[in-house]
Amino acid sequence: MRHRRIPLTHIGRRAQPGAMPGQVISPKGAEKPTITVFAYGPTTVAETQITSLDELPELTGDQQVLWIDVSSVGDADLILALGERFGLHRLSLEDVVNLHQRPKAEDFDKYAFIIARMLNTQSPDGSEQVAFFLGKGFLVSIQSAPGDCFENVRARIRSGRGRVRTCSSDYLCYALLDTIIDSYFPKLEELGETLQQLEDDVVTAPRADHVAQLHAIKRDLLMFRRTIWPHREMISALVRDDHDLIRKDTQVFLRDCYDHSVQLMDILETYREIASGLIDIYISSISVKLNETMKVLTVIATVFMPLSFIASLYGMNFDRQVSPWNMPELGWKYGYLYALLLMAVSAGALVWYFWRNGWLDKD
Amino acid sequence: MRHRRIPLTHIGRRAQPGAMPGQVISPKGAEKPTITVFAYGPTTVAETQITSLDELPELTGDQQVLWIDVSSVGDADLILALGERFGLHRLSLEDVVNLHQRPKAEDFDKYAFIIARMLNTQSPDGSEQVAFFLGKGFLVSIQSAPGDCFENVRARIRSGRGRVRTCSSDYLCYALLDTIIDSYFPKLEELGETLQQLEDDVVTAPRADHVAQLHAIKRDLLMFRRTIWPHREMISALVRDDHDLIRKDTQVFLRDCYDHSVQLMDILETYREIASGLIDIYISSISVKLNETMKVLTVIATVFMPLSFIASLYGMNFDRQVSPWNMPELGWKYGYLYALLLMAVSAGALVWYFWRNGWLDKD
Amino acid sequence: MRHRRIPLTHIGRRAQPGAMPGQVISPKGAEKPTITVFAYGPTTVAETQITSLDELPELTGDQQVLWIDVSSVGDADLILALGERFGLHRLSLEDVVNLHQRPKAEDFDKYAFIIARMLNTQSPDGSEQVAFFLGKGFLVSIQSAPGDCFENVRARIRSGRGRVRTCSSDYLCYALLDTIIDSYFPKLEELGETLQQLEDDVVTAPRADHVAQLHAIKRDLLMFRRTIWPHREMISALVRDDHDLIRKDTQVFLRDCYDHSVQLMDILETYREIASGLIDIYISSISVKLNETMKVLTVIATVFMPLSFIASLYGMNFDRQVSPWNMPELGWKYGYLYALLLMAVSAGALVWYFWRNGWLDKD
Amino acid sequence: MRHRRIPLTHIGRRAQPGAMPGQVISPKGAEKPTITVFAYGPTTVAETQITSLDELPELTGDQQVLWIDVSSVGDADLILALGERFGLHRLSLEDVVNLHQRPKAEDFDKYAFIIARMLNTQSPDGSEQVAFFLGKGFLVSIQSAPGDCFENVRARIRSGRGRVRTCSSDYLCYALLDTIIDSYFPKLEELGETLQQLEDDVVTAPRADHVAQLHAIKRDLLMFRRTIWPHREMISALVRDDHDLIRKDTQVFLRDCYDHSVQLMDILETYREIASGLIDIYISSISVKLNETMKVLTVIATVFMPLSFIASLYGMNFDRQVSPWNMPELGWKYGYLYALLLMAVSAGALVWYFWRNGWLDKD
Amino acid sequence: MRHRRIPLTHIGRRAQPGAMPGQVISPKGAEKPTITVFAYGPTTVAETQITSLDELPELTGDQQVLWIDVSSVGDADLILALGERFGLHRLSLEDVVNLHQRPKAEDFDKYAFIIARMLNTQSPDGSEQVAFFLGKGFLVSIQSAPGDCFENVRARIRSGRGRVRTCSSDYLCYALLDTIIDSYFPKLEELGETLQQLEDDVVTAPRADHVAQLHAIKRDLLMFRRTIWPHREMISALVRDDHDLIRKDTQVFLRDCYDHSVQLMDILETYREIASGLIDIYISSISVKLNETMKVLTVIATVFMPLSFIASLYGMNFDRQVSPWNMPELGWKYGYLYALLLMAVSAGALVWYFWRNGWLDKD
Repeated sequence: MRHRRIPLTHIGRRAQPGAMPGQVISPKGAEKPTITVFAYGPTTVAETQITSLDELPELTGDQQVLWIDVSSVGDADLILALGERFGLHRLSLEDVVNLHQRPKAEDFDKYAFIIARMLNTQSPDGSEQVAFFLGKGFLVSIQSAPGDCFENVRARIRSGRGRVRTCSSDYLCYALLDTIIDSYFPKLEELGETLQQLEDDVVTAPRADHVAQLHAIKRDLLMFRRTIWPHREMISALVRDDHDLIRKDTQVFLRDCYDHSVQLMDILETYREIASGLIDIYISSISVKLNETMKVLTVIATVFMPLSFIASLYGMNFDRQVSPWNMPELGWKYGYLYALLLMAVSAGALVWYFWRNGWLDKD
Repeated sequence: MRHRRIPLTHIGRRAQPGAMPGQVISPKGAEKPTITVFAYGPTTVAETQITSLDELPELTGDQQVLWIDVSSVGDADLILALGERFGLHRLSLEDVVNLHQRPKAEDFDKYAFIIARMLNTQSPDGSEQVAFFLGKGFLVSIQSAPGDCFENVRARIRSGRGRVRTCSSDYLCYALLDTIIDSYFPKLEELGETLQQLEDDVVTAPRADHVAQLHAIKRDLLMFRRTIWPHREMISALVRDDHDLIRKDTQVFLRDCYDHSVQLMDILETYREIASGLIDIYISSISVKLNETMKVLTVIATVFMPLSFIASLYGMNFDRQVSPWNMPELGWKYGYLYALLLMAVSAGALVWYFWRNGWLDKD
Repeated sequence: MRHRRIPLTHIGRRAQPGAMPGQVISPKGAEKPTITVFAYGPTTVAETQITSLDELPELTGDQQVLWIDVSSVGDADLILALGERFGLHRLSLEDVVNLHQRPKAEDFDKYAFIIARMLNTQSPDGSEQVAFFLGKGFLVSIQSAPGDCFENVRARIRSGRGRVRTCSSDYLCYALLDTIIDSYFPKLEELGETLQQLEDDVVTAPRADHVAQLHAIKRDLLMFRRTIWPHREMISALVRDDHDLIRKDTQVFLRDCYDHSVQLMDILETYREIASGLIDIYISSISVKLNETMKVLTVIATVFMPLSFIASLYGMNFDRQVSPWNMPELGWKYGYLYALLLMAVSAGALVWYFWRNGWLDKD
Repeated sequence: MRHRRIPLTHIGRRAQPGAMPGQVISPKGAEKPTITVFAYGPTTVAETQITSLDELPELTGDQQVLWIDVSSVGDADLILALGERFGLHRLSLEDVVNLHQRPKAEDFDKYAFIIARMLNTQSPDGSEQVAFFLGKGFLVSIQSAPGDCFENVRARIRSGRGRVRTCSSDYLCYALLDTIIDSYFPKLEELGETLQQLEDDVVTAPRADHVAQLHAIKRDLLMFRRTIWPHREMISALVRDDHDLIRKDTQVFLRDCYDHSVQLMDILETYREIASGLIDIYISSISVKLNETMKVLTVIATVFMPLSFIASLYGMNFDRQVSPWNMPELGWKYGYLYALLLMAVSAGALVWYFWRNGWLDKD
Repeated sequence: MRHRRIPLTHIGRRAQPGAMPGQVISPKGAEKPTITVFAYGPTTVAETQITSLDELPELTGDQQVLWIDVSSVGDADLILALGERFGLHRLSLEDVVNLHQRPKAEDFDKYAFIIARMLNTQSPDGSEQVAFFLGKGFLVSIQSAPGDCFENVRARIRSGRGRVRTCSSDYLCYALLDTIIDSYFPKLEELGETLQQLEDDVVTAPRADHVAQLHAIKRDLLMFRRTIWPHREMISALVRDDHDLIRKDTQVFLRDCYDHSVQLMDILETYREIASGLIDIYISSISVKLNETMKVLTVIATVFMPLSFIASLYGMNFDRQVSPWNMPELGWKYGYLYALLLMAVSAGALVWYFWRNGWLDKD
């Protein structure tokens, strides 16, 4: 298989049933987070690494957006402190530390809570969960594992290229979501290349391991669909929703992002149908091969059986002395040649029969 | 099979057709219930076991919620008495004793009637039905069999941890439903582990019993889907509905619970598709194996048939005395060696032919 | 097959195309109806058998509901007279005598027209059509064949048990529909038992006739779905509709009846998926069996072919007198033993090879 | 195959891409139309055959409806003249001459434009397109080929039976649509009979040509569905639409017609599922047969191989003179009987083995 | 395969993830565009080729519509200039140069942005993307590759035939979209012909390469569906939307165009189901063939095995001198004839058995 397989049992792990809702407990083995804070406005930008929320910079007059990016979920207290500072619901905070949430967008009075899943080659599953709290003038993003694909966005904030510096926190949120969605395209393209290679192979020269490879691809596509489908719903909810957190300008951009998620689903479905079709082709090719094998056996066996029978016939030991009726052929002058001729005629007739019925063709 | 199989015929058993609607008859073999009553408020909590409704404690000023938990449905009179006491519809009461209801939420004027299905290892089917009557200040829960997964919630009420004591009966109802939903996760995870094991086995070394195991898993997933799907609808109805029994605060929590039910459905669907894919792989692997078997037979038969033919040929008894044309090879000096050579050449040619056509490869 | 099969061609028979709409012609072979009239109120009940509508009893002050139950459709004039008496639309009357209508509920100004299909073991198809005309204070039910499952309801009217006597005609209509829906449960349970038996058999010991049995079950389920699905829609329409014929009280009961129809659909779908899964298992088990068969053949053939070859080899007649090179083994002292040993070694080697490759295991 | 197959490439033929929309060109080979005009009211009816629109009769005071029935589309000028006379949109006129339109109903301001497809055994495809223009007081119907199933309706107009004479043009339109829909029932019933016959045959005695017959039936059902599904939508649109062209009275009738189209779809789906199920059964029966075949081969081969081996064994020519160890059996007094016994025992043992394993049963 | 296969990996290529949204970079290898401008009104038309936007002609009083047709996307500056000139959103401009967009219609305040995909045999993928910006009095169309199917529309503008000159830019947009949609019909008809040919072949004489051909057709249909489905949505959005850019008159035409897209989907689905059905038939025909092959083998082997056995039997060398019990048949006068008769009887019995069981029939 071409890449790390996502274990089936990770796909929905949750806290213990009956546990008190709203409990924020860091998952085992989660790393201590680093906190990167961007405070920016059209003209100024300040980037700091802080270790506690007390160091959170105040926005100066010119700075309109505060982006607090927490790199991992290893510090439950930090998350609780963030919750207190920005007035976040306990249930949202619980979702932040439960690492296999379904991507979703929830509308709270003062903020929107967004869960997304980002491809991350540094993460053991190949992906990590990112939680966003989008409020007026701030965006809190909490990633479940170190490493992300946000570097481009950070560069744009630092340099002031594009419109991110002149827009509010909703645009920043869009930019990050767009990056997450777009990062699935190269991954799918990789799958598409594998699938195309397999397609050529299965149609021309099917091999037993192809079916396992096709299964692995279908499984991956299934997993991607499980991830991308709710992203699509989530972005659709953001586009449709009428809350004042997301401005009309940004909705145009989110609509674009929504188009991309639809395109991803489209590609996934196309790939899945092709993969399913290839499994059918593989199975039918096995049957064809089996038929070929059986034809070889049948032709050979059918040709040699009469030959062997004739040879055995004249190997019988009936006593020619006793009676002229006992195997007179054995005493013929051309008896042997006659037997050989008999064999040649019988073999020839059978081969002709098979040839006429197309058994000797490559089918 | 790994666990008790739910009999197909239990899945929809009902009272006799034409029976009077609203009849409350205890199912055969149902145990006598114990009644546990919690009366609690932010500061006080009273827990009592009563044997008749006459002993129902009055709420003191500080206590806001009365939770009456009936452990089984063996006492029809008790259920009727509860119905009278809290003004419950006869049809709801009938549903309480019909133990294979579809989970649902129904809105009556003064109360909401909720049917859920809880995993319960003590129950013969592995699960039991729980009926909730949620009204202003009270919650009646009637389980169909002893044993439940509510212990955590009871502990929270007793200790005052979390928000259950400070909230109304709707929060209690949410807490119990959430526990029920969450208890499906470990069960599914178990199935997921079995499936993952099977996946590895079927792809690398398919065995005849795998298909029965896959069928058992698909059947279990089917049964779970039948149970979980209406839970999802039920909670969705509670979230959407605009009745004053469920406060806005609690709806946030129910939305979380709804997310979990969606996640369960998601996992179920993923598992089902993987299980179906594995059956395809299994079937194709059987064909591959069959082809392998036939190739072995064909190669062996095809190699030995000419050999046996040659041996039979020179076992013929044509009379060499009569004519020099009769089997002169038998009199050659190196006749035997010539025959052996003929055999070796014919076998070699066939083996070479099979080797060139890839028949001797592990396919 | 376990029961009478519904012929495919009955499922949609209609009057001749181009026929005038609204024509009421008794179907061929329909029996003459008996007319049973119940006139009842909370305190009194009168049950009469009449032969013409002229004998229809007048409602006394205390009697609120008139139920006219026509046992079959053999008398077109009676149906037309009923139509005139109660102001029924000609198209509805036409539907009454067309016996393969889809269950439906239609709302006319003064009455609701309902078509249902009732299981009836006395009917040749195993089921019969029942048409209801529900109006203020009256219910006309016209069955397509004698025999019904309404006896329980009649008993309740006679005895005054339950609420039927105290309610209006809509409750009576509900009670009859509920009886019809509920009568499908035992039938499905029967199917479920057959299916469960088949499930055990197919998984452990598949037989060729299983596939025909599974087809018969799938076919029956298909037919039931065709019947039950529109019942579900029909009851849903009655529940949702806002006409004053069906009072709020009765809607609660109809909602219960709707739940039952949903449950029926649920069971049907579950059964269908299990039946489909079993067909897959059956097919895969055939392949497994075929492979077993071929392995037996291959092992036997492969072991005996070299043996036979060796035996044939030393059955050749090369002339040992001519040259010491001609079959010297025949003259060896232990030649025979050597040949037997050669055979034993070759057979042993092959058996060992097959054993090592797992061919001798029960797969 | 039982009837003319509809060519796949006819199913969506259109004018050349980029052609000017609204062009009305008679299709190649279309016949010159005859025009039949009915002008009728409750008391009078006039039926005339005209050759040009100039001859169109004026409605007399008593006559309310003008039905202009054009028998084929061979005269583009006539269609254009009709368009001008009744104010019809050019696009509708273009659709009239494009003979593979999807059935549909379009609402224009002054008229409704309806496309239907009518079974017609005189048409090469087995069906023809009918276009209706329904306006206040008139109905224009343009058929694509001579021959129709409207004779019953014409007879009703002439005789004044039924309500067609007393109603407006919308009722006439309903009556024609109803006739078209109903004409599919006998056709489907025919298919149903074929399918039922095939069902019996495939289950009891599958033959290789069954699969082609099932394919032909599935293909026909597919084609019918393609035709009937949009009819259903079309009638549904007419029922739902709120335009004053279709009066409430007529909507009741159209609702009935809608029910019939739903029933057609129902039957189609049932047939399709049964046909698909039969293909599965056929495939599984082939596997069963193959297994049977292989069992026969295996039993025979396995029984005779040891026999032949023993016979070959004692056909070896080891020199009994040289040593007493060389084939002493040949010199035994009962050597031959011993050999025969050996054969009988080995064959008996194998037959017993196969019998015990159920190989000799009809599976 | 009959035509260029669209590579799977092209179906969703996008800019690099994290790239700044709204960047307009010409795709690699894109040709420099030529710009054709039509300025027309009911009476006048001017057609010019310009090289920069500065040369854009002003509309004279009589000219109402400006159509700027850009032949390829090789000049990013031109696209940006167009954006500035007509007030187009940066995201739309980005979509113009990303060549694998999903067809869509987006509503901006002052213009509608439409993406379509046009068949183009000059393009490497066989199709190209066309972006339309439809505003009051102007239409900008930007094609991704030279060559198009708009020549008919241009001719109509030049000649003044049809209504294009008298209508606004929305009608022009419709005319181009209609041309694009209609150009899929001949392509599908081609596929339909191939499919029909394959259908005949697969049913009468299945060959191993049919399955690859069917896969290729299914793949093509999948790709077409991916393209046509969003076109359908796009046109539906244009029809439904209530913006003043598209006038009611034009909506009638767009509705017609919508019908065509529905018809395309219909044909695609029909073809796909037929292709899937043919794969089933192919697979079942392989099984049938295999059974045929095995029957030939079985019949031949079963007939010759007893014959060979009898021959071997009388080839045994038991010493007739030693005892009269040793193979007395060899000394019979008619021993040989007896053996031949034995063989004939055994062969005859087997042939009769096979004949009676129908093994000798062409199945």
